[in-house]
Parts: sequence; C-alpha cells; structure tokens
Amino acid sequence: MSSAPAADVLPRRNIELIATVKYFIVENLRTARRFLKSCDRAIDIDSLHFVELNTHTDPAAIPAMIAPLKEGHDVGIISEAGCPAIADPGAQVVALAQKHGFKVDPLVGPSSILLALMGSGFNGQSFAFTGYLPIDAAARTAALKRLHREAVNNRQTAIFIETPYRNNRLIAEICTSLPPSTLLCVASDITGPNQQILTLPLSQWRSRQYNYDKIPTIFLLFTN
Amino acid sequence: MSSAPAADVLPRRNIELIATVKYFIVENLRTARRFLKSCDRAIDIDSLHFVELNTHTDPAAIPAMIAPLKEGHDVGIISEAGCPAIADPGAQVVALAQKHGFKVDPLVGPSSILLALMGSGFNGQSFAFTGYLPIDAAARTAALKRLHREAVNNRQTAIFIETPYRNNRLIAEICTSLPPSTLLCVASDITGPNQQILTLPLSQWRSRQYNYDKIPTIFLLFTN
Repeated sequence: MSSAPAADVLPRRNIELIATVKYFIVENLRTARRFLKSCDRAIDIDSLHFVELNTHTDPAAIPAMIAPLKEGHDVGIISEAGCPAIADPGAQVVALAQKHGFKVDPLVGPSSILLALMGSGFNGQSFAFTGYLPIDAAARTAALKRLHREAVNNRQTAIFIETPYRNNRLIAEICTSLPPSTLLCVASDITGPNQQILTLPLSQWRSRQYNYDKIPTIFLLFTN
Repeated sequence: MSSAPAADVLPRRNIELIATVKYFIVENLRTARRFLKSCDRAIDIDSLHFVELNTHTDPAAIPAMIAPLKEGHDVGIISEAGCPAIADPGAQVVALAQKHGFKVDPLVGPSSILLALMGSGFNGQSFAFTGYLPIDAAARTAALKRLHREAVNNRQTAIFIETPYRNNRLIAEICTSLPPSTLLCVASDITGPNQQILTLPLSQWRSRQYNYDKIPTIFLLFTN
C-alpha cells in the first residue's frame, strides 16, 4: 500500500487478485478498507474478514491468522507502506505459512527501499538494509561508522531509516561522523507527490539547506 | 522487464510513462523492442532511440548515454530481468545523472530479490544481498560460512544468487557446509509460470529431491 493511487504503483494482476480474496491480515483496519475500496469500487467490504497485525499484536495471536489457509481459503497481507514483510509486518505469518507447506505468492509493489536504491546510483550488486539506527548518541555514531566501514570494505550500499522527525538531525550527524567524500543519498516521499532522490557527497550536504522533517525518508551511503 | 506479461508486473503508470519517452538505454535491444511493443501496440518503435548497456559495454561509452538529458529529453532504462541498477545494469548511468543534478524517477517493478524476501518468511527488517558467490570451491565454502555467521550475529537475512546451471550443486554445498537447523529459502522462476518459493531447514533439503537446473533462482539463508 502507499499514498499513491493503486494503479500508479500496483500492477493490474494485484488488483484482480485482491477481488478474489476474502481473508485479509492488515496493518491498519481503517486504511486497508479504504485501500481495497480504491482498488475496486464494486468490492463488498462487509463480506470480507479482517485481522490486524502490527506492533500492538500479541505474537500468540499469529497462528490463528493462517487458519483460513487450512480451510482452503487464500489469505492476503496488506501493510501500510511499502511491501509486507519488508520493514513492515507480515514476515511471521509468511514464516508460519511456509512451515505448514502453504504456497506463498508475493505480489509486485512499491518498496521504497528498492526504489531508493535504484534511484541512488549506488551499487545494486551488493547492498544491506539494516532498519533503524540506535537512538543513543554514542551507539548511533558507532553504528554509522560501522556501516561506513562495511560499505567501504565490501563495496556495499548501506541502507537505513530513521523516525521521520529525526531526519534532519541524522543528516547533520552523518556529516560530522563520516569522511566528506562519502556519498549520501536521501530518498524522501518515495512514490508520493514530492518524491525527491538526491545523491551528493557529504562535503556538499554539510553546506546545503534541507528540510526532511517528518517526511518518510530512506538513507543510503556509498563510497566510490 | 520480466517474462511475465507487462500488465501482470508493471503498474499502469509505467506503461503510460513509457509512451512519452523517446530515448532508451537497454540491456538487450531485441527484447527491449519486443517489450515496448507488448506495453503499447500503437508505439512507433522506429521513432525511438536505443543504446545498449550490458556487460559488453565500454564504460567510456556511458557519459554519452545521458546526452539527451542535457537537451531536455527524458531517458528510460530497461533491463532484462528485475529492476534496472539492482543486480542489473543501470547504476553507472543513474550515478552520472545524479552527479549532473538530473531528476531520477525509479519505477515500481518486479525485483525478484525483494519478492523472494517477501515470500521467504525471513527477517525483512535486516537483510543483505551480496550477488554471486565465488566460483573457487574453497572461497565459496568460506563465503557461505561468513554469510551464515553474519546472518546469525545480526539476525540478518543473507540473499545471494548463482549461475543457474550451478543451482543444484550450490544447494548440496550449502547442505554440507552449514548447520542442519539453518533455514534455506529457494525462490525460483519468480513472476514466471513455475514460480516456487520454498523455505525448509537444511536437514530437510538434504533428503529432498529437487531440480533447479538452469532456472533463475534466488537463495536466502536465515537462522531463528
């Protein structure tokens, strides 16, 4: 799911498949219903079965979510942004489905991580996504230095994210912690109306005006 | 691009955008022309400008590829399988476009790496793609052990690929090199007619019959 219209970011096959599924595991009930309605105005939302899976979900509730599979029904997973199971809920359900031998069919959709990597110009033959950096200042600087070292040693693109209200501070921290020739790509509002993907050396980020406050953003580091 | 029909794997927005682009950088001229025709039968292929970018391309030829951008034209990049610039050609062109300050707009499409990760049930909060393993037997075993160690230490999903005619041998090698409780996901023919994504512990792969010979396949390792 994404803030962009469904037809902009999803292939027709997904929208056709959605119409055949009656059981959904969703990150947020309200936005998932709205999304399904936007895919197909004719959809009868009240005939569908929903269960929420997000950070508030008790892991003990997950096994019951695949019960419809055992009765021969398909179960769809819808997450709020990007792709289910990738920096989004869903992996535990997929793991359980795999364990029980059910067929898993991942659908093509917008992964802001992959779109950011495609747009960065960085190495796409070797890359690592490591999620959020630590919050503690010393652990954060140490993590940045480690990511940078691995990026240099393995010619690998380092990809990570931050809580959006800390974006500006993170860029400043990267500029002071790493060598000025390091390339930083800041990919913000991916698939949104203000999408911007900008790759510059830290020497230029240091003197640049920017404001990514509260905008969903992916950060990528690389050294030539 | 992919072996699946365009509408199955590409959003409508891509197909609309394609019709507005006159300059294309493509991995293979013949299949790119066929793909464009499949997107839009009305397209006038002879009015389009193509340049090939693949393993045979002289790097010195790359700067000229972005010349149309300087004249105000859009330039599209089309690769053979998956997403341009991700385990596919394109990153050098994107890097150059970024360096010259041109806007880059990555389009949503099928990345077999991401689809495999979504379907594996493995950790999607932390993962690393490292491309091909070394060919030399000792270096290969060492690489597998290192990937396994990093996967355990960082609770990270390790993702890699192999030349398709070596797929079966690689699975056998993984089974003999790593602990039996390690989970291996073999994701083959992603978005193709015989797509199969199977996660099992090595203890089960060892005794299983399989044949992935010459089938494009993604390999993923994880340890719970």
